[in-house]
Amino acid sequence: MINRLCIIGVGLIGGSLARALRKAGAVKEIVGCGRNEGSLRRAVEIGVVDRYSLDMAQAVRGADMIVIAVPVGSMGQVFRTIVPAAESNAVITDVGSTKGSVVDAAIDACGAVPINFVPGHPIAGTERSGVEASFAELYQRRRVILTPLPETDPQAVEKVRAMWETAGAEVESMEVHHHDEILAATSHLPHILAFGLVDSLARMEDKREIFRYAAGGFRDFTRIASSDPQMWTDICLANRTALLQMLGHFAEDLAGITEAIDKGDGEHLRQVFQRAKAARDRFCETNN
Amino acid sequence: MINRLCIIGVGLIGGSLARALRKAGAVKEIVGCGRNEGSLRRAVEIGVVDRYSLDMAQAVRGADMIVIAVPVGSMGQVFRTIVPAAESNAVITDVGSTKGSVVDAAIDACGAVPINFVPGHPIAGTERSGVEASFAELYQRRRVILTPLPETDPQAVEKVRAMWETAGAEVESMEVHHHDEILAATSHLPHILAFGLVDSLARMEDKREIFRYAAGGFRDFTRIASSDPQMWTDICLANRTALLQMLGHFAEDLAGITEAIDKGDGEHLRQVFQRAKAARDRFCETNN
Repeated sequence: MINRLCIIGVGLIGGSLARALRKAGAVKEIVGCGRNEGSLRRAVEIGVVDRYSLDMAQAVRGADMIVIAVPVGSMGQVFRTIVPAAESNAVITDVGSTKGSVVDAAIDACGAVPINFVPGHPIAGTERSGVEASFAELYQRRRVILTPLPETDPQAVEKVRAMWETAGAEVESMEVHHHDEILAATSHLPHILAFGLVDSLARMEDKREIFRYAAGGFRDFTRIASSDPQMWTDICLANRTALLQMLGHFAEDLAGITEAIDKGDGEHLRQVFQRAKAARDRFCETNN
Repeated sequence: MINRLCIIGVGLIGGSLARALRKAGAVKEIVGCGRNEGSLRRAVEIGVVDRYSLDMAQAVRGADMIVIAVPVGSMGQVFRTIVPAAESNAVITDVGSTKGSVVDAAIDACGAVPINFVPGHPIAGTERSGVEASFAELYQRRRVILTPLPETDPQAVEKVRAMWETAGAEVESMEVHHHDEILAATSHLPHILAFGLVDSLARMEDKREIFRYAAGGFRDFTRIASSDPQMWTDICLANRTALLQMLGHFAEDLAGITEAIDKGDGEHLRQVFQRAKAARDRFCETNN
């Protein structure tokens, strides 16, 4: 049971966690914190948090669990403010999509990663943002990856694990850089391709007509291009190394496909498409 | 009313058209034709066609409407067989995703595009294939693009238009090459990116683990990578010119994004992502 949960950044991710824990009866009081007072007021109105503060140091006071759910580019500033203000027995975790940059931000802000801080990342979300989009079931059967460091307090890790399991998630641990490589591949690169494609088309002259003839496949393929631009700018910059590596691989493979089309090499295309279909069909079988 | 409809290639597209026309009571008899007898027998069993023939020349005999629904790479052979065998008053149309290549195949096979042939393309489909995946509602509120040539018989165009409208579609006409450019942008390029991404990831050593941590965004983004590899090989080769142009544009834009990540240019990334989100959100508003 969490006595007082403090959520820094009450949007889709933070709000959905608050709703899930409340629904499970696993938290006594939820305090919200953020920069947009209108949004925090709304979070109280719709019952996501009990009260809010615009002052981070004040918001974390008395909390035994602090969840940082702000864009990864703002983590340093949050660490600087809350780590000195938090109770000594408080557990701190985050939900950032990149973990190396969050660990770096903690070191930068505090000199070292606090042993009560457990870096975390729920692999869940929708293309929508904001507390109004939050819902208690977001984490049901989703994976949450924790990337504790060697010095992280094991009890803090256990408390964060228990929190996410209560919210319905399956929790796993892995090493920080391994997380960042996997997420560059399965999440960050697809987002860049979807954003990039829609922007390429939108900048063509006859764009209205182009989109007019787009069908269901296009809608699904580009759904993630409706995600929050600032959040994704942060993620791209924060996971720069792993992402550049993935982009390099992909650009090479795309050049190979382009060359095959140019040369009329159907065999190369068929092989790529068959391998992809087989892998994608397997992915769906094992993730239903 | 169609007296005898002949569908060459009774899969998702041809089968769904047959179902829709039968449901609307707009056809007296439906004859299927193809290479796979097991699949044609199944098409009879589930009521998609009334009877079938493995012989194309025989199948089209007596038909007043002939729909060619085979991969675009097989069009030439179909034209060569059915054009001499078809009744003189028959209307012939196709459903190929590329139109320039189909027109070329007709010229190649028959010396000229038959005046009773109306090139067509229903912008509809799912990632599934085969007659078992067909359903009568596939074309409801979907666009069908016809690309008649100056010499095409206007009455033939009207009959094809009426057939698709009966199946629930909105029918429009445009010039052959314009069709191919638009589809390269909104359909063929996205398929290549989805196939290419999944293949890139699948060829990495730790692929099982990579896919294990993929979430809903990945599933939607890659749905079209479960499409039929042979069909998409054909499409890529058939729409080579327009597709190479689109791939060139996209590769350039992707290099720009990569450079921005490398240099830490958040402003460039934000602009790309914002433009993309705005365009994608508009697309969804106007296509609901």
